[in-house]
Amino acid sequence: MASSPSHPLGPLTKSEISQATALIKSQWPEGTKFQFKIVTLLEAPKDELVLYLEAERAGRTPKPIDRKATVVYYLRNTDKLHEAVANLTKNKVESNARLGPFIHAPGDAEEIVAIEKSMLEDEGVKAAIAKLQLPAGTVVVADPWIYGSDGVHEGEFSDHKRLMQCFLYMRDPNNSSAEDGCHYAFPLPISPVVDCVDHKVIRIDIMPTGLDGTVKPLKAWQGPVPPNEYVPEAQPGGLRKDLKPLQVAQPEGASFSVSSFSELGKTIKWQKWDFKVGFNQREGMILYDVHYDGRPLFHRLSLSDMAIPYGDPRHPFHKKQAFDLGDVGAGATANNLSLGCDCLGSIYYISGVLADDEGRPTDFPNVICIHEQDSGLLWKHTNYRTNRAVVVRNRELVLQSILTVSNYEYILAWNFNLAGDITYEVRATGILSTQPLDLDLTTTKHPYGTVVHPGVLGGYHQHFFSLRIDPMVGGRGNQSVVYEEAHALPRDPKINPHGVGYTTTTTPITTSGGYDLDVASNRTFKMVNTGVRNAINNACVGYKIHVPPMQTMLADAESYHHKRAEFADHNIYVTKYAENELFAGGYYTNQSRGGTGVRSWANRKDRIGRENGGEEPVVWVQFGINHIPRIEDFPVMPMEMLKVTLRPVNFFDRNPALDVPSSNQEMNHSVGLNGVVDSVAELKVGEGGKPEAGACCSKL
Amino acid sequence: MASSPSHPLGPLTKSEISQATALIKSQWPEGTKFQFKIVTLLEAPKDELVLYLEAERAGRTPKPIDRKATVVYYLRNTDKLHEAVANLTKNKVESNARLGPFIHAPGDAEEIVAIEKSMLEDEGVKAAIAKLQLPAGTVVVADPWIYGSDGVHEGEFSDHKRLMQCFLYMRDPNNSSAEDGCHYAFPLPISPVVDCVDHKVIRIDIMPTGLDGTVKPLKAWQGPVPPNEYVPEAQPGGLRKDLKPLQVAQPEGASFSVSSFSELGKTIKWQKWDFKVGFNQREGMILYDVHYDGRPLFHRLSLSDMAIPYGDPRHPFHKKQAFDLGDVGAGATANNLSLGCDCLGSIYYISGVLADDEGRPTDFPNVICIHEQDSGLLWKHTNYRTNRAVVVRNRELVLQSILTVSNYEYILAWNFNLAGDITYEVRATGILSTQPLDLDLTTTKHPYGTVVHPGVLGGYHQHFFSLRIDPMVGGRGNQSVVYEEAHALPRDPKINPHGVGYTTTTTPITTSGGYDLDVASNRTFKMVNTGVRNAINNACVGYKIHVPPMQTMLADAESYHHKRAEFADHNIYVTKYAENELFAGGYYTNQSRGGTGVRSWANRKDRIGRENGGEEPVVWVQFGINHIPRIEDFPVMPMEMLKVTLRPVNFFDRNPALDVPSSNQEMNHSVGLNGVVDSVAELKVGEGGKPEAGACCSKL
Repeated sequence: MASSPSHPLGPLTKSEISQATALIKSQWPEGTKFQFKIVTLLEAPKDELVLYLEAERAGRTPKPIDRKATVVYYLRNTDKLHEAVANLTKNKVESNARLGPFIHAPGDAEEIVAIEKSMLEDEGVKAAIAKLQLPAGTVVVADPWIYGSDGVHEGEFSDHKRLMQCFLYMRDPNNSSAEDGCHYAFPLPISPVVDCVDHKVIRIDIMPTGLDGTVKPLKAWQGPVPPNEYVPEAQPGGLRKDLKPLQVAQPEGASFSVSSFSELGKTIKWQKWDFKVGFNQREGMILYDVHYDGRPLFHRLSLSDMAIPYGDPRHPFHKKQAFDLGDVGAGATANNLSLGCDCLGSIYYISGVLADDEGRPTDFPNVICIHEQDSGLLWKHTNYRTNRAVVVRNRELVLQSILTVSNYEYILAWNFNLAGDITYEVRATGILSTQPLDLDLTTTKHPYGTVVHPGVLGGYHQHFFSLRIDPMVGGRGNQSVVYEEAHALPRDPKINPHGVGYTTTTTPITTSGGYDLDVASNRTFKMVNTGVRNAINNACVGYKIHVPPMQTMLADAESYHHKRAEFADHNIYVTKYAENELFAGGYYTNQSRGGTGVRSWANRKDRIGRENGGEEPVVWVQFGINHIPRIEDFPVMPMEMLKVTLRPVNFFDRNPALDVPSSNQEMNHSVGLNGVVDSVAELKVGEGGKPEAGACCSKL
Repeated sequence: MASSPSHPLGPLTKSEISQATALIKSQWPEGTKFQFKIVTLLEAPKDELVLYLEAERAGRTPKPIDRKATVVYYLRNTDKLHEAVANLTKNKVESNARLGPFIHAPGDAEEIVAIEKSMLEDEGVKAAIAKLQLPAGTVVVADPWIYGSDGVHEGEFSDHKRLMQCFLYMRDPNNSSAEDGCHYAFPLPISPVVDCVDHKVIRIDIMPTGLDGTVKPLKAWQGPVPPNEYVPEAQPGGLRKDLKPLQVAQPEGASFSVSSFSELGKTIKWQKWDFKVGFNQREGMILYDVHYDGRPLFHRLSLSDMAIPYGDPRHPFHKKQAFDLGDVGAGATANNLSLGCDCLGSIYYISGVLADDEGRPTDFPNVICIHEQDSGLLWKHTNYRTNRAVVVRNRELVLQSILTVSNYEYILAWNFNLAGDITYEVRATGILSTQPLDLDLTTTKHPYGTVVHPGVLGGYHQHFFSLRIDPMVGGRGNQSVVYEEAHALPRDPKINPHGVGYTTTTTPITTSGGYDLDVASNRTFKMVNTGVRNAINNACVGYKIHVPPMQTMLADAESYHHKRAEFADHNIYVTKYAENELFAGGYYTNQSRGGTGVRSWANRKDRIGRENGGEEPVVWVQFGINHIPRIEDFPVMPMEMLKVTLRPVNFFDRNPALDVPSSNQEMNHSVGLNGVVDSVAELKVGEGGKPEAGACCSKL
């Protein structure tokens, strides 16, 4: 049942997933039980892949590449973790090795639900809850969290075993039947630790609920505490009624096209942009082979990792650091986006297929939505001599995916515009992972968080994101990374007599490492091609990186938070390209201990850039926020937005959006609310250096 | 003809402008000629104004306040500058003083056109142009620029006289009749200096066109140079035809209301927001008395100043620094916005009235456009236990104004959202003020700019903006400014044994001065009310300021660029409120020499904040970019966006957007492009903790 080699970038199909898991099962005795964690495409070596893609673009028949799957699995109810490679084309297992110790696979949805259930049935947990004397009928729920690492008990259970730390809450005692009530408004001080092998509770942590680390014996829950619901039907004052519909009409349809390059892989074309979209368990949406007007830009773009370390030093919060991609998976947690809810306008949905814990192919419908949006004016100029204005609006193509990781949501989007920019946008929303606080401390400033509700603390935490960019700006072979700075010139009677002069310096990055922004020097990182020059001004063609500065990780360099989040200490990492170096925090982040990830790879001190006798770089862009919660962030958080923009610099010969038709009423059908609509007629003039119909904003 | 006292914040009406200029003229002998520069509302002292506004809100009859106008004028064809105050209610001139020396009024449109014309007729200029031996029929055009200051010839003409420095260009010699051709692609090395009193050319500067300051004798223009046009009909490849219409439909109309609080002043109400809009010559759009849900937030919001210093140290470029508000005026240069061009959707336009140089009231139609826009998701959460998702879209109210200042455009907008945020957005676009370069240096890196076209240099320059915020967060009386930082805790066996802990510190600003962001400590500035506490967590209610870090001015502290731009050295200035301190660079910026503006006011070292024994603050927020031109920024620049957001912090008790109806297909009428539309029906479920019709994004 060997599969014919389809496109090397196509996400694994249902039959390939079945084939891969069957191949693994065939390695083991009949009746062996498995817990499959990851069944995903193993991408071909870049050199092979690039030849394939170049042949494909040139219209030649590409040399077929074997399809391979990486399969990560446990023998069920054991800690025996394996990583295997199945060659689907040759229908054989190429490798199958047991991993560990101290390497743990991510959690999976089935497991998390099962652990919540069994943990709540544990007699010790029941006894602990009983001590809280909760109101009759109260429903207790739990968010099982990945356990994290603290280096304590090295080699003992806490590092050796794969564990879950459960955070307990209750539903509003006065409304226990409301399944969608916000239990985060009722955190409980009990935190059982569960062994993922047998789902047994191995320890019950009691949380500190004061201002310091003191842990008090469990006592009767202090109430009453009001609810704080986010569901619309529970809003005390009802919903506002004066927000009128705003709809996007695209009478001629969308401007983009979607075609399939494999059973599940899609090729998107829009306004000179051209790229492939993939989807997998770990990264979710991936972009490949991005071109503009036929010119190569990026070989591969993806969100490579995320780390969310918390700042509360008290046990058990001190271990709290989520790696949502490595610990769970951006694909595994991708929402099923639905029409009218997550996008506006004319929308195309891409669906995915992933393996469940039994290795069965499972539909992930509508994990990516694609639509266009207007984003205001892109450029305008009015000639004050003729009063002729030329106005061009910006249009953006958005590919959006939304993750739900237990309490929290990430809205992730790639955004392409008409001027050659690519922007990666993160909207952080969802619900704070709250912790219990003594009710009488509600009005007291807390050292480790913000009080967001009576008896509820929203702990301080940082969010770090790492974007992986595999560039081919202007073509492969001479990719390099430089940073440009602006510096004042010294006063000089001849050169700078008035002290106003400044100039720029450009510094190539010749060695792999971590680099930082420097606002004071306007430091800007650029991906350039030293072998391709701008035809007009002879500058190397390039793309610059607009990334907001971030406060790097506050946990100290010896801490496990810092060791594990290998990307959270620099805005920019540059490494030499190497196969299988895709994830900034390493392949296995669950209870990781550091030593693998972008910091380690960068520490090889590889030469970067052919002109430096080095090789082509991979660029890792880090950004984030220190989330000091506001009470306004509860019970659900208005999104905080972060953007990274890749912008052409001397890549084109002139503004690439000059050929965008002017904004005009014929196309836009706007509505004037105070009679101004009438004046448009006057503004219509004929051809020949004069405004086109409606395309003007004349100054009288 | 005294005018009955209308609302104290109403922009001057046509009759008030006529009355004010008539009152001034009555001070002078019959037949005196005037050049009016500014005829604008003199706002009442804040204490009087606040009593008026409070009475108005309380439904009481406010105590009338005299209407007054500030009138700035020259006796025509002299350097005799006067500043007068006309009391329109009492119909008398309260003061009328001559200003100067070294104080100069802004340029005006009539003057700039007249100077271009007379300068080009100057025999000396003609002789200089003749030396260029331009192709027959070439049309030369000029951008007269404000002269700037360099401190040379102190007390002599260059500071004493009001001058214009003219930059010369030609239209494409092969297409001289195209009035809207981009002459910035053909800069000429001749720069005449004109006296604004008699419009005589007093000097002809020849520009350096090499890599250093060497000025070569004028010689025959070197060509050929291709054109580089931005007008649509001149695009070599024609316009792209595959961008399909995207329209905004608001079938039930807009959600905002507009009413008049005076003949020209408007009150806007939208989604619990409520504020007044004014318009004047200097600041353009101004917001007053901003409230949310009846709670006071900001007394006055406006862009207070702008400075654009250039980094080329060579004469005459070393003086090049534009203060577009003080040197010309954001109102005076406001575009007439037209339907279908500058906004999308259902649009309301506000028009203004300003005085021309003869003091005549002049219509400025459609200077502000108001519309709503969708801006994606505001918040979302999916309960993974029930798979119920609740999704709320963000809606924004946008008030936009666009300035054309000779070659350049600024798109300025105030943006209100559903979660209590106010964002000020700047889009910088338009055309670079180019300078000539020896054609054979086109492919050489230049120390002071980017080559954007053969023989054309786009000089490095910085943009600085200063936003003035007069806060009343939660009410007047106890306004204070603090900054919050996040700091790692030291390792400590008891308190922070794992090195992961961090906490926040809050520092009140007790003295007026300049303050800076500090990314390393996550420093965040907040406007707080020390007299009003959050009902839940007892924190002072406040609004924080999200402002991007900027590279401060590169010109040294002794330079005139630095002395004049009193706001370009710190992200934040805090001053004690004082009447008539509205403009960060001082009232008269044209050829200014510093010594007036926010830096000088801050240097009073006033106590700030009542609890510090001080008074209420005014907050000045600075932001900007160092514009290192890309060749893509020519011939017209894709906009660069800057945003400053004011966001509630513990001002509300919970997310203020919880009562926004969920995003749903009934309201949004989105269109599914691949059959997904059918699945929406399935998602509709009844009441009671279950998804409302269409308002869901269930995860299967």
